[in-house]
Amino acid sequence: MTGTNTGLLAEGVPQLSAAGVHEARRRLGDRVLPTPVVRSEELDAAAGARLWLKTENLQRGGSFKMRGALLAVERLARAGSPGVVAQSTGNHAIAVAMAARECGMPAVLVLPVDAAPTKVRRIRQAGAEVLQVGTTLADRLAVVDELRLLRGLDVIDPYQDPDVVLGQGTATADLLDGVQAAGGRLDAVVLPVGGGSAVAGACLVTDGSGIEVVAAEPAAVPALGAALRAGRPVTVTAEPTIADGLRPDRIGQLPFDLARHRVSRVVAVEESEIAEAMRLVLTRCRLLVEPAAATAVAAALRIAAEGGRADIGVLLSGGNVETALVTELLSEPVGTP
Amino acid sequence: MTGTNTGLLAEGVPQLSAAGVHEARRRLGDRVLPTPVVRSEELDAAAGARLWLKTENLQRGGSFKMRGALLAVERLARAGSPGVVAQSTGNHAIAVAMAARECGMPAVLVLPVDAAPTKVRRIRQAGAEVLQVGTTLADRLAVVDELRLLRGLDVIDPYQDPDVVLGQGTATADLLDGVQAAGGRLDAVVLPVGGGSAVAGACLVTDGSGIEVVAAEPAAVPALGAALRAGRPVTVTAEPTIADGLRPDRIGQLPFDLARHRVSRVVAVEESEIAEAMRLVLTRCRLLVEPAAATAVAAALRIAAEGGRADIGVLLSGGNVETALVTELLSEPVGTP
Repeated sequence: MTGTNTGLLAEGVPQLSAAGVHEARRRLGDRVLPTPVVRSEELDAAAGARLWLKTENLQRGGSFKMRGALLAVERLARAGSPGVVAQSTGNHAIAVAMAARECGMPAVLVLPVDAAPTKVRRIRQAGAEVLQVGTTLADRLAVVDELRLLRGLDVIDPYQDPDVVLGQGTATADLLDGVQAAGGRLDAVVLPVGGGSAVAGACLVTDGSGIEVVAAEPAAVPALGAALRAGRPVTVTAEPTIADGLRPDRIGQLPFDLARHRVSRVVAVEESEIAEAMRLVLTRCRLLVEPAAATAVAAALRIAAEGGRADIGVLLSGGNVETALVTELLSEPVGTP
Repeated sequence: MTGTNTGLLAEGVPQLSAAGVHEARRRLGDRVLPTPVVRSEELDAAAGARLWLKTENLQRGGSFKMRGALLAVERLARAGSPGVVAQSTGNHAIAVAMAARECGMPAVLVLPVDAAPTKVRRIRQAGAEVLQVGTTLADRLAVVDELRLLRGLDVIDPYQDPDVVLGQGTATADLLDGVQAAGGRLDAVVLPVGGGSAVAGACLVTDGSGIEVVAAEPAAVPALGAALRAGRPVTVTAEPTIADGLRPDRIGQLPFDLARHRVSRVVAVEESEIAEAMRLVLTRCRLLVEPAAATAVAAALRIAAEGGRADIGVLLSGGNVETALVTELLSEPVGTP
């Protein structure tokens, strides 16, 4: 699982720190979009707090995963890699496929059999090979390891690769800058947790800032909550969730190591809350987000309702969503008008 | 129709010029959101040109109409007005209602009987009175005139009021600044046409810049095209259109006077193109826009397909859309994946 690309002390591997994130931002330059930080009066009224939305649903490839993938693929390309392989529930795979195309490298992506069809289509559009296998992280990792051995491909781990974690951290760094530029200051930042790279990056960026890091996960797949209770990453039994991006049933070791000291709160969000948050963001903020991003919004609404936090940043992690799901959600009542 | 607030030479009435728009921007200050200018690789690929989207669907009140309404209502409040009345297909009414609430003034809004229910609800939420009458501009103007005489209310005309035109022009001014800040330069800017205030404002802002002004209207309500052919505003027979914001069946005199010398092109967009553009913006750009904004996108796609224009700005005028319409549109095929 960790492969050869995760050794933190290996030559050329960047520093896992806030400084490392800022260096990652410099390396990315204008290859990612400066997605806006958006505010909505109507959402704030519903929340009872100021929510600052980092719109990575508008990012290239439809998610913040583009950030880490570009850095990791570029590093391997410079090292003369023959090609890359990655497992993912979807967005990391789209991002690796697009980054590999830009670097002129072949890429193989391993997804669950029930991956979102939109995401599979986007990977193929980027010219990469897709393998769909099983439904668990372990199923996918076994195939990744085979491809590494048989085809000599380099693995880009979505949770363990330091470039990926640093790259994902740039989303939070940009969010903080955007809030500051608008004259605000966050009390907390909320990020969705699948394998944990978003939270890991946010932990690096916010270190020493006094900004609370809140992790949002579906109650159906409570991998971070279970890991924090156990004191180590554990595999949980994943119940069905509409948040297809948050289905990894085990948190990565590196994200866990960073999160255990910095994450102040894990909010386990019910399926109905995810659906309601997705509707709310679409109809009140006019932004289409995928359920993973809606999970963070739902968690932000929960902690806002508790009071005590006036300004809450939210990573709208992605916008790769099946149109059938949007139709289904909009057909249900939208709550108070 | 013109009332007492449209005399261009009256005391205190601002100058209808690019300088007037910049002064309007200063007056607005931070009472409108600095909505981002968004780019999308996927939309650009579909268009074959760079499209720069001014996301006024994310504006306060859900449309760019907030800009002009704030200026006009504020001017009347300062003059000691007892209250305001305005006719609109929806967004100008929402904006006037919100601006009046902020100034502590009563407001009455006159809409067609078949106005979008979402828009009517938003006006009532802002605490204003709603009257729904007929379906034509003439029907609504008659009621506005009655209210002016009977209740002594001041009229805020959505197409003739100079503050409204200047305020709407700030959306185009901000778009141009956003493009410039990103290192780009527009060949053309595309705006939807209902009564004409967006186009009128854009004509002021782009005067002398060499940027082409393209007006987008539904083929079902070709009010600007007909006026340009006739050499004066004429009332057209309005066929049904999903672009509820673009149903005024006659262009305003002031917008016409500005447009006739500056608008290089009127694109009459079919209903199917509006629907397809709305789907495209939702699924590729992850932005929810109302059909009026999609009309501008559809026109931008048409002129992009002709070639010769590398950078095209588009005013995404608003995002106040019925969820039932979104559901219906998404249930149809989305074209090439």
